[in-house]
Amino acid sequence: MREAILLTPGPLTTSLATKTAMLTDWGSWDSAFNALTAGVCNDLVNIVHGGETHVCVPLQGSGTFAVEATIGTLVPKDGKLLVLVNGAYGRRMAQLTRVIGRQVEVYETADDQPADPAEIAARLAADPAITHVGAIHCETSTGILNPLAAIADVVERAGRRLIIDAMSAFGALPVDARELRFDALIATSNKCLEGVPGVGFVIARREALLAASGNSHSLALDLVDQYLYLQKTGQWRFTPPTHVVAALASALEQYRLEGGQPARLGRYAANCRQLVSGLARLGLRPLLEPSLQAPIIVTVHAPNHPDYEFKRFYEAVRARGFVLYPGKLTEVETFRVGCIGAIDSAEIGQAVAAIADALAELGWIH
Amino acid sequence: MREAILLTPGPLTTSLATKTAMLTDWGSWDSAFNALTAGVCNDLVNIVHGGETHVCVPLQGSGTFAVEATIGTLVPKDGKLLVLVNGAYGRRMAQLTRVIGRQVEVYETADDQPADPAEIAARLAADPAITHVGAIHCETSTGILNPLAAIADVVERAGRRLIIDAMSAFGALPVDARELRFDALIATSNKCLEGVPGVGFVIARREALLAASGNSHSLALDLVDQYLYLQKTGQWRFTPPTHVVAALASALEQYRLEGGQPARLGRYAANCRQLVSGLARLGLRPLLEPSLQAPIIVTVHAPNHPDYEFKRFYEAVRARGFVLYPGKLTEVETFRVGCIGAIDSAEIGQAVAAIADALAELGWIH
Ligand SMILES: Cc1ncc(COP(=O)(O)O)c(C=O)c1O
Ligand SMILES: Cc1ncc(COP(=O)(O)O)c(C=O)c1O
Repeated sequence: MREAILLTPGPLTTSLATKTAMLTDWGSWDSAFNALTAGVCNDLVNIVHGGETHVCVPLQGSGTFAVEATIGTLVPKDGKLLVLVNGAYGRRMAQLTRVIGRQVEVYETADDQPADPAEIAARLAADPAITHVGAIHCETSTGILNPLAAIADVVERAGRRLIIDAMSAFGALPVDARELRFDALIATSNKCLEGVPGVGFVIARREALLAASGNSHSLALDLVDQYLYLQKTGQWRFTPPTHVVAALASALEQYRLEGGQPARLGRYAANCRQLVSGLARLGLRPLLEPSLQAPIIVTVHAPNHPDYEFKRFYEAVRARGFVLYPGKLTEVETFRVGCIGAIDSAEIGQAVAAIADALAELGWIH
Repeated sequence: MREAILLTPGPLTTSLATKTAMLTDWGSWDSAFNALTAGVCNDLVNIVHGGETHVCVPLQGSGTFAVEATIGTLVPKDGKLLVLVNGAYGRRMAQLTRVIGRQVEVYETADDQPADPAEIAARLAADPAITHVGAIHCETSTGILNPLAAIADVVERAGRRLIIDAMSAFGALPVDARELRFDALIATSNKCLEGVPGVGFVIARREALLAASGNSHSLALDLVDQYLYLQKTGQWRFTPPTHVVAALASALEQYRLEGGQPARLGRYAANCRQLVSGLARLGLRPLLEPSLQAPIIVTVHAPNHPDYEFKRFYEAVRARGFVLYPGKLTEVETFRVGCIGAIDSAEIGQAVAAIADALAELGWIH
């Protein structure tokens, strides 16, 4: 039986080349591995055209570790973060900021509603204590695209600093550090870059990072320490996930060969269009209107049948070789389908057929 | 050319079976992956016979992340940790405890000198503020074996709690939770278990863990939260390094088939003996006397030649297919050779021959 295709926004389906890059054991002290790390960091900064101003700090662990590290490092102990929330990852950013003892204010909008730049400007004007703004590029809970350029603009005009969680967008949605001002952009190996999970990274404005020495609430999550050690020695401060880093290096090489960010976005956008139109033929509607839908993950209203249960639906589609993702909304019954990973129109076509077949078997479509 | 053999204490050489276990993409939400995680946790607790009293909390990141998580979770905000230091990892434990804002006292002995249990008892008697003691089982900086049973004994008699960093010992050196009382024992996937790096874990006394709710200085490193979520859902709180976990599951299966802890210790002890006697024939002496030497990593006095330089030595041995490890001592010139990983007498024999050949070429032995 073929391995299941993951229609989930990380871990996702990776190419065989990416996985076979993990068949070597690397010495973390060896110059060959140092070169691998340097190459990866260089590639990552270049994806956002940040070479002049920004540096890449890789960090062991999942994406949330990198978000906490960024806030703990960049927001000073007497700083205050305004978090723009329209889903679970925005809420998590606010929560972890509270846990680590930084002041936080939340500006929350509905799950299908991006933050209003005028309202951000008003809040920044009203509260001079706010030093930083935290935004989610693509809020993976629904797949909504937040208006990053407009947000960056009001934050810059108010003289505050921007921290972007671009976890599920990095590498596919364009960001240009020469035009959009941010102090940190956080992402991970295993979403649109199509690596395997186990490492996060932060593209930080060098000047802001170096000024943040001594802020961190943590040793393991101190990005200044991590960066300076890497600069000085070429090595990671603590044991790196060598195989995961090697897989990311391979994934980045494949990314380049595919044509980089525009090509990656093109493939995902095509996946997304094909998915949405295929599901529409089954009578399944996406939650978001097209202008708000990032081509990363699609939240779909559940079939309108009294017996509908996600678990049964999941199992039936799983038996046909595809792994779906549950919805994350509390008020409407939804499920999610990822458009990202080493998948193409062939897999999306098969997935839509599998969903149709499963729903027919369950008797949930007419 | 054959892949280099890593004589380094993690990352180390793993078996091909362990690496090929990474050729599958797992959905972190899928029940198959939940079962994989549960199996790994169960196996890890059983290695220390902790099933009745202890639970396993896996954590993304390197070993240091798990050490910081353990101290931040188990030592309350008004607690105080006495750290037994005879090398770099003890020093790091003290440092991170300070960074996260817990009180710390250090009892330091020389690099080749284990802590004296009577002195520990005296310090605990003298300072009732000390709530916890932190000890390193095998201090990897030198390879010294610390007297864990005697330490646990004085800590228990003083009514304090023990936290063990068993990073480089777990799975090879025996620990029995039914006889040796500890609140937490910290280890990682990629030392004596011969998995790949990217995940740590903590074997925690259930009662102590559950009583520690709300202590943590961090969201990502909160072990109570991590444990409760895993218990409730079968899933990791944040994206797990799925491929690393799959490799660990395979490595644990191979561990069981080899004969578990006694067999693993036997193989490493044989590696260590063969290495020490082989190096002795080249005139190279270990730093530690045999009774203090754990069969994990051997610190060796550098060749006594005025031109000796580790970097040149390293490169010459590297060219012959073996990766050595630098010394970590400041006062004496040393290098280190690991005994652990998927290596056996064949590789140790080849390594000694490679070292002999390199030294002859460099003119550093007669
Ligand atoms: C936007 C966003 N932020 C943060 C995270 C958290 O990442 P992790 O699960 O790797 O901790 C995710 C993961 O899906 C995400 O999509
Ligand atoms: C005894 C001990 N403690 C802690 C660590 C730190 O682990 P890591 O490098 O995975 O953070 C090591 C790593 O070699 C170790 O040997």
